[in-house]
Amino acid sequence: MQSSQQFVRQALASRWRFQSLPLKPLTPVPSDIEVSRAQTPKAMDLLAQEVGLLPGEVEAYGRCKAKVSLATLHRLRNQPDGKYVVVTSITPTPLGEGKSTTVVGLAQALSSQLHLNTFACVRQPSQGPTFGIKGGAAGGGYSQVIPMEEFNLHLTGDIHAITAANNLLAAAIDARIFHESTQTDKALYNRLVPLVNGVRRFAPIQIQRLKKLGICKTEADSLTSEEVTRFARLDIDPDTVTWNRVLDTNDRYLRQVTIGQSPTEKGHTRETRFDIAVASEIMAILALAGGLGDMRERLARMVVATSRSGEPVTAEDLGVSGALAVLMKEAIKPNLMQTLQGSPVFVHAGPFANIAHGNSSVLADKIALKLVGEQGFVVTEAGFGADIGLEKFFNIKCRLSGLCPDAVVLVVTVRALKMHGGGPKVTVGAPLPKEYTEEGLDLLERGCANLVKHLQIAQLFGVPVVVAINEFTTDTRRETALLVSAALRAGAAGALRCAAWRGGGGGAAALAQAVVEAATRRPRGRPRLLYDLQLPVEEKIRVIAQKVYGADDICLSEEARRKIELYTKQGFAELPICMAKTHLSLSHQPELKGVPKGFVLPIRDVRASVGAGFLYPLVGTMSTMPGLPVRPCFYDIDLDPDTEEIHGIF
Amino acid sequence: MQSSQQFVRQALASRWRFQSLPLKPLTPVPSDIEVSRAQTPKAMDLLAQEVGLLPGEVEAYGRCKAKVSLATLHRLRNQPDGKYVVVTSITPTPLGEGKSTTVVGLAQALSSQLHLNTFACVRQPSQGPTFGIKGGAAGGGYSQVIPMEEFNLHLTGDIHAITAANNLLAAAIDARIFHESTQTDKALYNRLVPLVNGVRRFAPIQIQRLKKLGICKTEADSLTSEEVTRFARLDIDPDTVTWNRVLDTNDRYLRQVTIGQSPTEKGHTRETRFDIAVASEIMAILALAGGLGDMRERLARMVVATSRSGEPVTAEDLGVSGALAVLMKEAIKPNLMQTLQGSPVFVHAGPFANIAHGNSSVLADKIALKLVGEQGFVVTEAGFGADIGLEKFFNIKCRLSGLCPDAVVLVVTVRALKMHGGGPKVTVGAPLPKEYTEEGLDLLERGCANLVKHLQIAQLFGVPVVVAINEFTTDTRRETALLVSAALRAGAAGALRCAAWRGGGGGAAALAQAVVEAATRRPRGRPRLLYDLQLPVEEKIRVIAQKVYGADDICLSEEARRKIELYTKQGFAELPICMAKTHLSLSHQPELKGVPKGFVLPIRDVRASVGAGFLYPLVGTMSTMPGLPVRPCFYDIDLDPDTEEIHGIF
Repeated sequence: MQSSQQFVRQALASRWRFQSLPLKPLTPVPSDIEVSRAQTPKAMDLLAQEVGLLPGEVEAYGRCKAKVSLATLHRLRNQPDGKYVVVTSITPTPLGEGKSTTVVGLAQALSSQLHLNTFACVRQPSQGPTFGIKGGAAGGGYSQVIPMEEFNLHLTGDIHAITAANNLLAAAIDARIFHESTQTDKALYNRLVPLVNGVRRFAPIQIQRLKKLGICKTEADSLTSEEVTRFARLDIDPDTVTWNRVLDTNDRYLRQVTIGQSPTEKGHTRETRFDIAVASEIMAILALAGGLGDMRERLARMVVATSRSGEPVTAEDLGVSGALAVLMKEAIKPNLMQTLQGSPVFVHAGPFANIAHGNSSVLADKIALKLVGEQGFVVTEAGFGADIGLEKFFNIKCRLSGLCPDAVVLVVTVRALKMHGGGPKVTVGAPLPKEYTEEGLDLLERGCANLVKHLQIAQLFGVPVVVAINEFTTDTRRETALLVSAALRAGAAGALRCAAWRGGGGGAAALAQAVVEAATRRPRGRPRLLYDLQLPVEEKIRVIAQKVYGADDICLSEEARRKIELYTKQGFAELPICMAKTHLSLSHQPELKGVPKGFVLPIRDVRASVGAGFLYPLVGTMSTMPGLPVRPCFYDIDLDPDTEEIHGIF
Repeated sequence: MQSSQQFVRQALASRWRFQSLPLKPLTPVPSDIEVSRAQTPKAMDLLAQEVGLLPGEVEAYGRCKAKVSLATLHRLRNQPDGKYVVVTSITPTPLGEGKSTTVVGLAQALSSQLHLNTFACVRQPSQGPTFGIKGGAAGGGYSQVIPMEEFNLHLTGDIHAITAANNLLAAAIDARIFHESTQTDKALYNRLVPLVNGVRRFAPIQIQRLKKLGICKTEADSLTSEEVTRFARLDIDPDTVTWNRVLDTNDRYLRQVTIGQSPTEKGHTRETRFDIAVASEIMAILALAGGLGDMRERLARMVVATSRSGEPVTAEDLGVSGALAVLMKEAIKPNLMQTLQGSPVFVHAGPFANIAHGNSSVLADKIALKLVGEQGFVVTEAGFGADIGLEKFFNIKCRLSGLCPDAVVLVVTVRALKMHGGGPKVTVGAPLPKEYTEEGLDLLERGCANLVKHLQIAQLFGVPVVVAINEFTTDTRRETALLVSAALRAGAAGALRCAAWRGGGGGAAALAQAVVEAATRRPRGRPRLLYDLQLPVEEKIRVIAQKVYGADDICLSEEARRKIELYTKQGFAELPICMAKTHLSLSHQPELKGVPKGFVLPIRDVRASVGAGFLYPLVGTMSTMPGLPVRPCFYDIDLDPDTEEIHGIF
């Protein structure tokens, strides 16, 4: 407590010249879009100036968004990092438990109530669900990123750039398979290295490929005919292509498709699928890249298929990785926006939290940590519960970035814990059963086991954990008290009710105070990672299954074994593990709530995102393309042609 | 001549406070990207101020692009329009004849040499070909829109917005077909109009549908069961779906696909295709919309299929048109960029010039005409040759906008005319045969017939025509002289060599002078349109075929007749005609060069873009999805991770 007061005093010295936007919360809380629209955002140049960005480091994208140059990181490289706080949750209901709202509310509180330099770092949501079931993802109530409609639509085009890059690579794969299947080696070579003014010259990217093949030649006419064949023929086995096309649209009919059926493709049809754009490996790369050069290299390393002789075929082999980097050149710059109270937010990257690691970008966190300065705070979010997003935050993101958080915030709701205690099923769109709107101490008490388990998971990494009870109007005092005491008994550094939704930063002030105390109690350590990369793949999976999920063991399918063998042979065994598991249970079975025990985790398959840098074991079937219901939320979405105001996004 | 001098004198009075960027052309001319990068563009706020835009009307998108608010048009509504010049060409070779370069060079000359307020209005290119065969599309040499890489990549995301909107609609169609096929009328209705807090309420867009059905009720519980069925069941015949998905990628494998093959779709597979994004009807709408409200209405009117009872099914019926308008809300604002000499350019919309009308947006032209003022110039471009883009410019775009150009510029090259005179085949990527690099007066003289024919086409519309000879270093003085005299004999208001590529505005100064003379010679009239909308569809097609292409007659297939009957029954017969014909010949056969005679134009099919507002007869087969060659130009594209400079786009 003392140390935190001292910390705040010191912080005042290096404080930004920062003006909060005034906030007068209404009761009842209007819809998110109404709350967002009622606030007038700061001009971006003002916000940028307040947080210490130089004019040359900021490019406006419309009035309320800006891209921040990576040069900022270089300029501030000798500046010590601020405090780093990661927000996670218990096993959620399908409705979500308010993690984003807590992130934004906490940032608003740190900034406007405690006057600490604070950045929130959040993920960009997929546009698909905005028009499907889910609605917006900018937080909610009085804790939002604004303008919420710009946050939810297009943003600055990063996901569109990913779609373009992902699909250029997909088109390149199929076009290459087609051309190789219809042309001789010599004809292929003559087209790949064409005569220009009488001379054949390799492009630099082709010389890369020659090097990879061990052909140390740069003169196009000097290749032997065997070398010509090896160079020109990638010899992709069409059945091994793992690269899918993507769209940022909920389009269920694209979950499985047959392509190449036009007569122009001469019968070279192939079965494949489309994923939602945020499931692209390129999104995972965006979130993990350390800079433009590192991103370029990761894009080059992406493995898209296996050749008939068992070699991995990469984007670099296809000659397209430079073009992919060019398409992603602007997307790599974090997007600056603001909270409802005018504090800065980086919105950057939004990889899936199952087949990818579900965390916002390393670059945004790093730039934010420099900008807030040693006494400032960066609040970032890890997708899904502590068993998924937080585990990956440490074992994948922090392992790579070298950063270590000073505190974990674990978001919990009375509603979710009652579900874990045996409450009736919670369904999207259906009214909540009365168990969730009336006091129910028994259900809650039984459900606390899930909270305790997530607390223990978070504690595995050696960082203090503060429990944030995201309040609902129906929560009773006794319910909150029960929850607080269960959390403290289990070793939480703090446990508090948080009213970020109805109160904005004011509603999260106590939480902010507790987070500052937890984060400043002792010097930052290094995170305890759960496994060494050198362990065999199977063993790394077992560690996560047992230590995090509480499984007795794992059980690998034949396919999974075969893939582990393949990846080991190909040299990818030392990558970290990114489990693709349901978020609705600690186990692999979504219907098992609470803390499932005595189960063996089945590993159906193992896949590789070599560019992003992880192997992802599939536990059960993951949907990577959502669908539209009978009445998608687009029915309510419209605009006023005169005022340009948008209705119906929430 | 006198009148034009007087015009220029008057213009000086209302001149912008405009600074040209200095230009020192090098010999030989470096690559487009090098020329572009060697220039430092003006800051957008300075350019905006120079051309009379208010700060509130401009939103920056990065350093060198900005969106301009449609409110500008309202503010300047009482300002007289400037002079309006449209640039077209003869029948081109597959290499293109330099129309964009002429547009930009002419704008640079008008602005920097003649000191007239000048806007260029150009189309946004598809990103697909940038990585395929074609390379950039920003003009070339010293007549470019800069930065050319930003022009060619993403721009401000308009095409991405179109892709998102187009594919949301596609997903909505298939999801609806699926849900209708698996649910009872009552179940559908209960989901479409769900109980919320005990009440069923229609969304406004559902009330629109009720009105269309003649059901004047707003209480959800008051519908009879027959009305429930009519409301809930669109009853789309899957075989009639005309709405395709799109991607802005050259992906030949998507030309014909089967979708819905995942078990989750329960066997409801369907054959369909993907087009390149710029072929979307939404792109055509963007180019023709008069404002946000008009765009919203056009999106609502788009017909995507026919019901089993023969009724057209629209985006509005699917409840998605408001959401489409929301996705397109920013795209409707023209994008401000600049030429190499710092004069303003609007880059806005880029519809296909065969299945759509191939012209940039009405809104950009209108705003530009107001901004330049009565003595200023707007130079806009019509896609392909005068037989296609210019015909549609008048009969579709001007008919709708009410604007009439003051002059037509017809771009011609010695190379193309030699081809029309019987020269050897010109192929992309192959070296030019010597007939094109050595003097060849005979070939050229024979080829002039194509020039004369295009001149006559342009003259049909009652506007003076200036011929611009886009010069090549290999053109001889005698060749140019021959061309000039042929053009003047055929009634051109002027005919001049134009060196925009190697000289920028300076190289186009004489052309600019001739354009000013032609455009100011007499007061602006109204364009002569070639047909009345009330004519029967077949007759409208015949008028274009005979008067423009020189066909003896047209010949409708059975399918085309059936479609004309259907559209006439559905009430779409009074739409203008947008011919989908090859641009490589005046006829329907690309190999027929010069001025083909004695042919009957076959109409294979007729389709409708009801939202954009035209019927498009298909003459032969149009490719709406390009492919990638063995060595796409992406092999050369890369970036320097330190400087962020892009290489290999040209």
